[in-house]
Amino acid sequence: MEVLKNEWYAAAWSNEVTEKPLARMIANEPIVFFRDAEGKVSGLMDHCCHRGAPLSLGKVIPEGLQCGYHGLVFNGAGKCVKIPGQEQIPARACVKSYVVHEKDQLVWIWVGDPEVADTSLIPDYGFHDDSTNWPHKHGVLHLKCNYMLVIDNLMDLTHLAYVHTKTIGSGAAAAHVEAIMKTEHTPRGVKFSRWMLDHEPPLTYSKAVKFNGNVDRWQEFEFVAPGSVIQFTGATDAGTGAYDRGARDGGFALRVFHGVTPETDGSCFYFYSTANGYRRDEPIATEELFDEVTRTFLEDKLILEEQQARLAWVPSPPLLDIVSDRARVAARRYMETRLKQQAESKSQTSRCEAGVARAEH
Amino acid sequence: MEVLKNEWYAAAWSNEVTEKPLARMIANEPIVFFRDAEGKVSGLMDHCCHRGAPLSLGKVIPEGLQCGYHGLVFNGAGKCVKIPGQEQIPARACVKSYVVHEKDQLVWIWVGDPEVADTSLIPDYGFHDDSTNWPHKHGVLHLKCNYMLVIDNLMDLTHLAYVHTKTIGSGAAAAHVEAIMKTEHTPRGVKFSRWMLDHEPPLTYSKAVKFNGNVDRWQEFEFVAPGSVIQFTGATDAGTGAYDRGARDGGFALRVFHGVTPETDGSCFYFYSTANGYRRDEPIATEELFDEVTRTFLEDKLILEEQQARLAWVPSPPLLDIVSDRARVAARRYMETRLKQQAESKSQTSRCEAGVARAEH
Amino acid sequence: MEVLKNEWYAAAWSNEVTEKPLARMIANEPIVFFRDAEGKVSGLMDHCCHRGAPLSLGKVIPEGLQCGYHGLVFNGAGKCVKIPGQEQIPARACVKSYVVHEKDQLVWIWVGDPEVADTSLIPDYGFHDDSTNWPHKHGVLHLKCNYMLVIDNLMDLTHLAYVHTKTIGSGAAAAHVEAIMKTEHTPRGVKFSRWMLDHEPPLTYSKAVKFNGNVDRWQEFEFVAPGSVIQFTGATDAGTGAYDRGARDGGFALRVFHGVTPETDGSCFYFYSTANGYRRDEPIATEELFDEVTRTFLEDKLILEEQQARLAWVPSPPLLDIVSDRARVAARRYMETRLKQQAESKSQTSRCEAGVARAEH
Repeated sequence: MEVLKNEWYAAAWSNEVTEKPLARMIANEPIVFFRDAEGKVSGLMDHCCHRGAPLSLGKVIPEGLQCGYHGLVFNGAGKCVKIPGQEQIPARACVKSYVVHEKDQLVWIWVGDPEVADTSLIPDYGFHDDSTNWPHKHGVLHLKCNYMLVIDNLMDLTHLAYVHTKTIGSGAAAAHVEAIMKTEHTPRGVKFSRWMLDHEPPLTYSKAVKFNGNVDRWQEFEFVAPGSVIQFTGATDAGTGAYDRGARDGGFALRVFHGVTPETDGSCFYFYSTANGYRRDEPIATEELFDEVTRTFLEDKLILEEQQARLAWVPSPPLLDIVSDRARVAARRYMETRLKQQAESKSQTSRCEAGVARAEH
Repeated sequence: MEVLKNEWYAAAWSNEVTEKPLARMIANEPIVFFRDAEGKVSGLMDHCCHRGAPLSLGKVIPEGLQCGYHGLVFNGAGKCVKIPGQEQIPARACVKSYVVHEKDQLVWIWVGDPEVADTSLIPDYGFHDDSTNWPHKHGVLHLKCNYMLVIDNLMDLTHLAYVHTKTIGSGAAAAHVEAIMKTEHTPRGVKFSRWMLDHEPPLTYSKAVKFNGNVDRWQEFEFVAPGSVIQFTGATDAGTGAYDRGARDGGFALRVFHGVTPETDGSCFYFYSTANGYRRDEPIATEELFDEVTRTFLEDKLILEEQQARLAWVPSPPLLDIVSDRARVAARRYMETRLKQQAESKSQTSRCEAGVARAEH
Repeated sequence: MEVLKNEWYAAAWSNEVTEKPLARMIANEPIVFFRDAEGKVSGLMDHCCHRGAPLSLGKVIPEGLQCGYHGLVFNGAGKCVKIPGQEQIPARACVKSYVVHEKDQLVWIWVGDPEVADTSLIPDYGFHDDSTNWPHKHGVLHLKCNYMLVIDNLMDLTHLAYVHTKTIGSGAAAAHVEAIMKTEHTPRGVKFSRWMLDHEPPLTYSKAVKFNGNVDRWQEFEFVAPGSVIQFTGATDAGTGAYDRGARDGGFALRVFHGVTPETDGSCFYFYSTANGYRRDEPIATEELFDEVTRTFLEDKLILEEQQARLAWVPSPPLLDIVSDRARVAARRYMETRLKQQAESKSQTSRCEAGVARAEH
């Protein structure tokens, strides 16, 4: 699979990574994540250098992760620190380690050259740390489709009128293509905003909040390559100033974080959180919002997995860009440029060695 | 898979194709079938030209089939007639359409060059429209084997004595290889007749009809390439003239239509109907006949699927023709000749374009 | 898969092979085993030479194995002895036959050149015929891993301290790497003995036998290529002379036969028996021992199957030999040498012909 290597991918929710090792394949590489007693998270190739056994079947001990087959122990940098039955540990006794970084309740992984890993490139999402103003809940879905199909999905919201007719897409289909749409390039992706003015509120919104009638509704989405999409959507009573004066309070407001991470060429993980910005003091509202959004994502899952199957069956499909998917096209163009640059750059150094070298600094 | 392209294949029973789209892969191509409000059946590639989503997840509207992802609409000829959000529809906005034709309760599909599709080549089977004289019931099985293994099976009935010992093959095994067998080439395949004279009636027959003792039994099978086999079988009391004077009434008589259609190289659909020609006024007899034949087909399915697996495991199997399978060999020879002719003929034009062109005449 | 061809593999337990044909793939070849009325076991390619149907769906008749599709009959040498509907049987009407030999309750198969099959090469294991002194029970597991991973597992017992902590590996992990280990090459493999002196008895042992305290424990394993491992393990009260004077009676003693046979490149059969050498008159002890060992093998299965998956995912894994797995390394070296010799020797003759020729001697 052609993925951007020198980038951060969401690998796990922080609370998924404990002292019990977690096996997860990321971009075709089997990885084990674990948290040591000090709380530090590490990611190693899930493949002992002795006999290839999965380290994820082992256990965390004070010295590191102990293989569950013959007891070799590796520290977080992938260096072997113990081989039962021998004093000397050869330099080549190591497993590839990955640069991982925990931020805003997510564990991020850099799958490329560790020497140039730069944590400042991880998307900011402080809302995950602000449960007062943005009470939220998170989850992860496994989808049997290439991860870029999920990005496509998020970058063309006209699908709401067809895929989500019972939730966020209810009302007249035409409203979705007639939204006031603004698309902008950003240094690391694409963002767009859409406004539907004087629009019938979708069911998801009107179940959550009482409106007087029609609403002014916004959808702001920012794609941060390679796999994050940051969403802020909401609605207030039509004509009360959300669009022209930025008066967005008092209606429905929802923030969603989407982190889409390739597992294999044909499958991915979809990390998402939903933050309740309208009935902040009601935990039940936060729960209901999460359940409602999960339902819409399962509707997406169904169509994306079937789309994946069709793309696999039909060779060189004659795909067509249309007017309403210009933000999606822009996101794809950005990715193509980045992938082209990557292909032209030099190949990487052996990362098992690099991992050990780094640990010994 | 090497299949005859310029031919008709049974794609569905008429009552399977409704306003709810039906997804079915035929000869490795994912196809969606649907029926419009006027009752006309269409078949399109199940793959929207916009993003490759399956059109079978969409819905039929008056203008055609609406994609369930972003709402593009295609008419029965595969031409895109609506793209939400834009007025202009590019000429290349189309999906491949297939020539389909409904006849005798079946929807037939022509998977080759639409310009030479000729409905007169669809096998005639008026019995499907004659519920008075030939009350019948139909079904479809999915088999995990190449479709030609089913044709092989039908063209060598000596298997009855081994595979169907509890139904149509009961009695002495030798009788099957000693049947009076006549094989004939036809313009589009092969046909054979077999007579077993003064033969113990098989259980399926004697459960259905009361005989005085032994019977004269006939089996007439006609293979019409590429996938149809038309069967007329029956028996009357031995020596009452069925064989020498054509006096076939008053005993057991069964017509079976077999339509075998490749799905992938290693799987197929088996459409079949069973017509009760002996207790025509008893619906229960028609039901029982269908159930009994379905049981025998499930016995075939078991062996054919295992045969498929063995053929896949064993490279270049040293297969052997024998005396009693000459009709089967003749059917295979016919197919090989046709496939050779096909390979030597010119390649086909782009069919998406052809489909649109046809619609605009 | 690269396997040693001119060798014997355990194919089935004797009581698995009856008049009902048994289908089992061995080293990527689909084989049917059956026992005739005289009790003789045969093995044929599970693939009729007529149409490739599996002979395992047929039945044993006095003349041989009758195909369940069209009734062809093959004798134990693979020669076709009957084709329904014709007198003449062409010379090429045969299926590949395998040299099989029954010994010590196991059916063994020689997958290479029949001309050089030598039954004296089958490992001796008379304990299977001695239910008085070595009451035992046997079973077979199917593992989704290459068969050599099981051999690896048996040839490095330091895994007991990590994989089998609840049964045979309980106690201090260090004891396992500190065992007195002696490794020896044998003409057809490698054997080792290990002694853990004054060692806490593992749970499996102390559940079976009452010890006074610590024990002297031995593990003797002999790998006989390509797939057999013959095990004798046990323990007596520490210092009572097992190690220095060979006084091994009166404690715990267990014999295990391991026969590991490749099915495909990534799967194998694991035949095993466990013999109770400590409470010989108690059938319940024999049962409990078998259950306990089966539980430990299921612990191995879990790790071996995950190991197989990791080895498939990670290209050219940088595997590392360590000090404590020298017997395993020796076994692998032996196999590599043999496989290299095999690759350099001449290719084999057609075995279907060879099978028939042999039968006609």
